[in-house]
Amino acid sequence: MATTAKRSRTKTTRRPSTKPRTAARPRRSGAASPPIGNAVVGQSGGPTVVINQSLVGVIEQARKVAPIQRILGARHGVQGILDDDFVDLTRQSMATLEKVALTPAAALGSVRKKPSRDECLAMFETFRKHDVRYFFYIGGNDTAETANIVLEIARAERWPLRVVHVPKTIDNDLRVTDHCPGFGSAAKFVAQAFMGDNLDNRSLRGIKINVVMGRHAGFLTAASVLGRQYDDDGPHLVYCPEVAFDEKRFIADVKRVHKRLGRCLVAVSEGVHDKRGVTIAEKMAAKAERDAHGNVQLSGSGALGDHLAGLVRKAMPGMRVRADTFGYLQRSFAGVWSEVDAKEARLVGKDAVRYAMTARSGTVVLKRKRGKRYLCTTSLAPLNKVARLTKSMDRRFINRAGNDITPAFLAYAAPLAGKLHPVGRLRGM
Amino acid sequence: MATTAKRSRTKTTRRPSTKPRTAARPRRSGAASPPIGNAVVGQSGGPTVVINQSLVGVIEQARKVAPIQRILGARHGVQGILDDDFVDLTRQSMATLEKVALTPAAALGSVRKKPSRDECLAMFETFRKHDVRYFFYIGGNDTAETANIVLEIARAERWPLRVVHVPKTIDNDLRVTDHCPGFGSAAKFVAQAFMGDNLDNRSLRGIKINVVMGRHAGFLTAASVLGRQYDDDGPHLVYCPEVAFDEKRFIADVKRVHKRLGRCLVAVSEGVHDKRGVTIAEKMAAKAERDAHGNVQLSGSGALGDHLAGLVRKAMPGMRVRADTFGYLQRSFAGVWSEVDAKEARLVGKDAVRYAMTARSGTVVLKRKRGKRYLCTTSLAPLNKVARLTKSMDRRFINRAGNDITPAFLAYAAPLAGKLHPVGRLRGM
Repeated sequence: MATTAKRSRTKTTRRPSTKPRTAARPRRSGAASPPIGNAVVGQSGGPTVVINQSLVGVIEQARKVAPIQRILGARHGVQGILDDDFVDLTRQSMATLEKVALTPAAALGSVRKKPSRDECLAMFETFRKHDVRYFFYIGGNDTAETANIVLEIARAERWPLRVVHVPKTIDNDLRVTDHCPGFGSAAKFVAQAFMGDNLDNRSLRGIKINVVMGRHAGFLTAASVLGRQYDDDGPHLVYCPEVAFDEKRFIADVKRVHKRLGRCLVAVSEGVHDKRGVTIAEKMAAKAERDAHGNVQLSGSGALGDHLAGLVRKAMPGMRVRADTFGYLQRSFAGVWSEVDAKEARLVGKDAVRYAMTARSGTVVLKRKRGKRYLCTTSLAPLNKVARLTKSMDRRFINRAGNDITPAFLAYAAPLAGKLHPVGRLRGM
Repeated sequence: MATTAKRSRTKTTRRPSTKPRTAARPRRSGAASPPIGNAVVGQSGGPTVVINQSLVGVIEQARKVAPIQRILGARHGVQGILDDDFVDLTRQSMATLEKVALTPAAALGSVRKKPSRDECLAMFETFRKHDVRYFFYIGGNDTAETANIVLEIARAERWPLRVVHVPKTIDNDLRVTDHCPGFGSAAKFVAQAFMGDNLDNRSLRGIKINVVMGRHAGFLTAASVLGRQYDDDGPHLVYCPEVAFDEKRFIADVKRVHKRLGRCLVAVSEGVHDKRGVTIAEKMAAKAERDAHGNVQLSGSGALGDHLAGLVRKAMPGMRVRADTFGYLQRSFAGVWSEVDAKEARLVGKDAVRYAMTARSGTVVLKRKRGKRYLCTTSLAPLNKVARLTKSMDRRFINRAGNDITPAFLAYAAPLAGKLHPVGRLRGM
């Protein structure tokens, strides 16, 4: 949709009408009129600080369009649909909704459950029972996959159901979309954490290692560099999962930086792995816990940071070495968010409803306009282009040595994180 | 000094004059006129996000008083004094200083060095060489001790030197003072981290353990409760070092909360110890690293959190259990600070200079006025009342069971952390 993140154009010819009781102008010729019935909205996967902006966007827009009668919020995503456990969102006050929009984590509750085919059938039966014609599911690639399966079942059952996936993830690893709502705010948190920790490390010198979230994609780890201002600002080394991690090279890198600056600040992704693809975390964890999607648990543990700190201590005896694992603060800290991210998260929620009125099903994606000024619009992509798959960082965002981030990434990510807290330095220090 | 944190009274009869070239009005009869010479200011110990407010307070005020000629900033505290390594602070622009005031961590560099008697003598010789008559040292109780030793040497050498310790610590464990600058901002960070993580834990249920800084005092861990609004809001369990930690009782507590709410969020201090006083971290760390002050390293490692998570996993098989260690973000995150804390940190810096003009040496302390509205003034206490010693939390701040925080703590700490990010909840959730 021709909607900008920074300046919303409220009326354009390309935007479908949202007037009550008026059939929406079809985006593609041959699109059927939107069915009349109820809508279900749910949230899934790891929370972000702006995921509720998308939820409120869906509710706000769904209330405006005639074909949608009631809006049912599924408690804890697919679990709520399976348990017939809904909260009525039709009559929440806008004051409550605006407060919820600024509240981190999933206001409806989230879930990591990957429903089986039978469970997807059961979900569909719940939809049929409640005359649900619209399903808006806010989440990552696993969420898109679930949405796609339910859609296929509805089609096979000849039940008019429009399913729109609303993207969300701090990892920024969804395909097709330029970036994901949730990433910008997490990037801002990580950038400001590194700005502070760089100054901390400058105050009390030593080797400091910070482990950043990101299983397969290094976007969030790369965001650690967004606050660098001076030549000696850290992080001085950045390791993303896109490049094989070599412990010997890591130690050599740290020693080199320490020799030059008398200190070293390192950003490392929780998902770093060796050249065979085995994560360092996997190597260490004898009994690695796996979640329902078959992923090894990387977050919620300080093990990787402690392991790397141990390597440095061994290689540099007597050195002051510390490791922090940023953990869930990156995705849920209250009070730090990116303005652009919040606006876009609201937008993709609203546009999900707009697309459901005109273009049936799909996943909302953000498209960045070329030009000096940052500007994003949305469009709708097929669900199966996003479902299950993930995206890694472009190799041009990482330097040749594989231990730092390039200016190309700054150009990409700085507008998403938005304004960072300004910091200063004394003359002569 | 009769200066309020929230509303600064710029002219009072009790405040010493700061006009150039005018001898300050003595606060006590018999106080000698302030000596004419240079001043040294330094920062020491773990950084805070407002320690530079105190530095700028010292500089700002020192420039206004006639007896102080040049202001020398010691790079990395006592290390800079020993190495004769200073930065001239006399001519920094106010624009730079105001930016530095909002910058986390020690702008002059910090140090954890505990100087020997000989080193204190060497420091004094540097002071004599540079005609230093004023020494302002911003830090915790170890810093106050160093300041006191240097003062004693100067007295023995009959060198007129005024030494004022400016309090700083996120742990809030200094004696005499109502609270310490640095604590309020760290408390706000911890409170907002728990607000977000409580919502995260409500979204994706399970057991979540967060380890908070605080070696001997539980103030910062207790601050985890400041954002609780609803009956089911976490943290549901809070463990401070003031109460012996019993692993069996911890597990029983977690099981009880989980039975009631289907989830459990735990705040635990890094300094928790058993009834013999041995910290859990010490128990675990076979080769515990010790810093120069003989303290075991508790921060910069995820070991305690991972250990406690392991206990829960063992006791509740199949349960989703995660642990985060907040680490250095608590003391250095850029962009989150308490307004009250920032004002008070500036105030104690300015008042350190004012006291040096009138009342010789000591440590600046904050005194809270009785009454409904929060109001703090400063006064000067003898250095040896603060040096070396630490303060624990009042037992009335902890509930009888030793696993939660009382309303008395809220009344004490809420004004220091200031306004928290507002969060909302959907009706029916």
